[in-house]
Amino acid sequence: MSAPAHPRPGTASILAVGSELLGTTRLDTNSLYLTGRLEALGIGVVRKACVGDGWNELLAEIPLALSRAPLLVVTGGLGPTDDDRTKEAVARVFDRPLVRDEAILRGLQERFRRRGIDMPKVNEKQADVIEGAVVLANPRGSAPGFLVTAGGGTVVLLPGVPTEMKGMWVETVEPLLVCGGATGAGLHRRTLKVAAMPESLVETLVKPVYAAYPDVPFTILAAPGEVQLQFAARGTPEEAFRVLDRIESDFHKALSGEIFGRDDDTLEGVVGDLLRLKSQSLALAESCTGGQLAGRVTDIPGSSDYFLGAAVTYANAAKADLVGVSAATLERHGAVSEETAREMALGARKRFGATVGLATTGIAGPGGGTPEKPVGTVHIALDAADGTRVHKRLLLLGDRALIRRWTTSTALGMLRKHLLGIPDGGRR
Amino acid sequence: MSAPAHPRPGTASILAVGSELLGTTRLDTNSLYLTGRLEALGIGVVRKACVGDGWNELLAEIPLALSRAPLLVVTGGLGPTDDDRTKEAVARVFDRPLVRDEAILRGLQERFRRRGIDMPKVNEKQADVIEGAVVLANPRGSAPGFLVTAGGGTVVLLPGVPTEMKGMWVETVEPLLVCGGATGAGLHRRTLKVAAMPESLVETLVKPVYAAYPDVPFTILAAPGEVQLQFAARGTPEEAFRVLDRIESDFHKALSGEIFGRDDDTLEGVVGDLLRLKSQSLALAESCTGGQLAGRVTDIPGSSDYFLGAAVTYANAAKADLVGVSAATLERHGAVSEETAREMALGARKRFGATVGLATTGIAGPGGGTPEKPVGTVHIALDAADGTRVHKRLLLLGDRALIRRWTTSTALGMLRKHLLGIPDGGRR
Repeated sequence: MSAPAHPRPGTASILAVGSELLGTTRLDTNSLYLTGRLEALGIGVVRKACVGDGWNELLAEIPLALSRAPLLVVTGGLGPTDDDRTKEAVARVFDRPLVRDEAILRGLQERFRRRGIDMPKVNEKQADVIEGAVVLANPRGSAPGFLVTAGGGTVVLLPGVPTEMKGMWVETVEPLLVCGGATGAGLHRRTLKVAAMPESLVETLVKPVYAAYPDVPFTILAAPGEVQLQFAARGTPEEAFRVLDRIESDFHKALSGEIFGRDDDTLEGVVGDLLRLKSQSLALAESCTGGQLAGRVTDIPGSSDYFLGAAVTYANAAKADLVGVSAATLERHGAVSEETAREMALGARKRFGATVGLATTGIAGPGGGTPEKPVGTVHIALDAADGTRVHKRLLLLGDRALIRRWTTSTALGMLRKHLLGIPDGGRR
Repeated sequence: MSAPAHPRPGTASILAVGSELLGTTRLDTNSLYLTGRLEALGIGVVRKACVGDGWNELLAEIPLALSRAPLLVVTGGLGPTDDDRTKEAVARVFDRPLVRDEAILRGLQERFRRRGIDMPKVNEKQADVIEGAVVLANPRGSAPGFLVTAGGGTVVLLPGVPTEMKGMWVETVEPLLVCGGATGAGLHRRTLKVAAMPESLVETLVKPVYAAYPDVPFTILAAPGEVQLQFAARGTPEEAFRVLDRIESDFHKALSGEIFGRDDDTLEGVVGDLLRLKSQSLALAESCTGGQLAGRVTDIPGSSDYFLGAAVTYANAAKADLVGVSAATLERHGAVSEETAREMALGARKRFGATVGLATTGIAGPGGGTPEKPVGTVHIALDAADGTRVHKRLLLLGDRALIRRWTTSTALGMLRKHLLGIPDGGRR
């Protein structure tokens, strides 16, 4: 067995240190943030690793990582306890001594004094610095970070606490990397989002766009009820954004009206902005989604500007009493039917005095299905004061959580199209 | 720079292959499952890594991993496309040829035929096997896996698709590892769950339990509105469960009545079981939680057995109209008040004809706070047909999502104690 060991220029690797990252519950999420920031500087991440805080593990992993990429970002293991040995390990690997820094020591003591306690003896070691390293100030915590360059490799040491790590990255590491010339043409990512459309249908529609940009990396990601189109361009922000804007516009043409937002946009946020912009108000009647649709709408700060309320009518008696579904409809068509959904939407709108009523009823499973109405049968209806009436019948696959999420995304997607005046597949 | 390179016996490392795992959105969640299964076999995970599907990366990483632990589990990169080279890389590292397996080829062709399509030429390479390797059948997908042992190291190759990976692990890999004697005294984990108690308070109460078991690894994890106590014991399942049961019983004593469940239990599931067991029915009135509480209750399959519905009364008019909060109360005390919460709970119970009514009202922020009622002020009330009336006032810190989650957990925790007849801190 032999391994080629040529670090690739302009690349980085990430090492997360902490035994808790080797258990069954926690993942290293810091690396997602670091990857985005590194890519924007033109530095691609070629590998990531997690190790515990054992001394031998650290001494082995740091050279391994530097054999694969010339820049190594290490997070975690900078605290005051015996388990925190990252700094010592990097010093050993680079054969540098640790030196007590009196200014840092006084700063630490002052930090504790402000909180009204004497600094424990163990914290003193946080004032030790790697000789010849750039010390990275950590205004949000007690452990400083380090940037060490030697033998063609650079190691950046940051604390594992996300807020401390992120603040130090932006305020100290990026300026040093840029000044040090470590950066190349930045990679800038963009994500466009489509609601409640099957991934395969989106893929068919956007294929011509992929074909028109053979050099652009495209990814299509499916989350329940949502499809994301991810792509990226390299260059200065201005250059890259020009390319990204052109691709985005091509995607909009290919998917006319189906893209609801980009990057951090959420469907509930976009719909909320539209409701506010159009001075409309919303009321809901929910059966199979059981409050989740209202929960999504009210996730948005300020949603009380346009959201009046919801009737979660799980029991049939509640469908009749709260939103006025007629006994005849329930008996003739059943609770899961187009007719019930329509009466629920109308009833919610009237009951809350809203301009738009939106209703869901269906069988989320796993029980309750019949041959005529299998699990996944869902009816969604929209009823507006302007006379618009829309109904959609879905036959969804998947488990209870997936069926409920798809239903809320489809309902919000219908509402978005109604507010924008975009014709929808639903029957009017 | 020099690295010690002694693989630790009885340990494993995990390598996830796929460029999508080096981006800004996806993490390797397969490793959490694999870690739990390996630990139960007595095999500790000492490192995890992610790399792209580049040929040089794979040729470098596989020996690196084997230098740290004698067992390496690789997931991903077994598909039919040019990007899928994991199998070729392992063959190269171990200096073994790939051989076309005619039986696997026929199986693949048959698989495609059943779906009514001819097998694409690219899929043929999925019938290539590493000479001398154990071929691991994959009944859920097209790519078989492999177990290769050579030079003191063992590599297990599995697909990256979680359902395929998990099925193959349980059905083929574990039996091979157990027969091969690779396993030691298993590590068995247990998690106990506490709702809506501050982490620091839980920590103070359970400290004596930690102290009584100096050799047991304890972790306390805080999720919004929930604290988890994790611990583990080594041995055969019988031996380990005996120790875990004793510790669990000590935790129950230390936290009298506060532990609602263990391992995969959810608060909404436990509360649902209690409602069904006690033949009780539930109705909700939600303001600040905006449907999220109903959403959690109805996440549970079969919740229609006990859940009648919710009035999500975001607007004040809805509080009056749907659950009968009096105009005088709203005017004198405001929508965020003990009085409003109590009337909402009573009104919800009566409106839906339930045995228990539960209500939330508060200021989730970021806007809407005043000096008297700052963001995070929340009132929760419970009203039962047996005459029980409970009210709790919270002052929560954190953002909107955190405040809403804490509120739903506190409300469900109150309901659980009511159903169990456990006295609660709330005023009656």
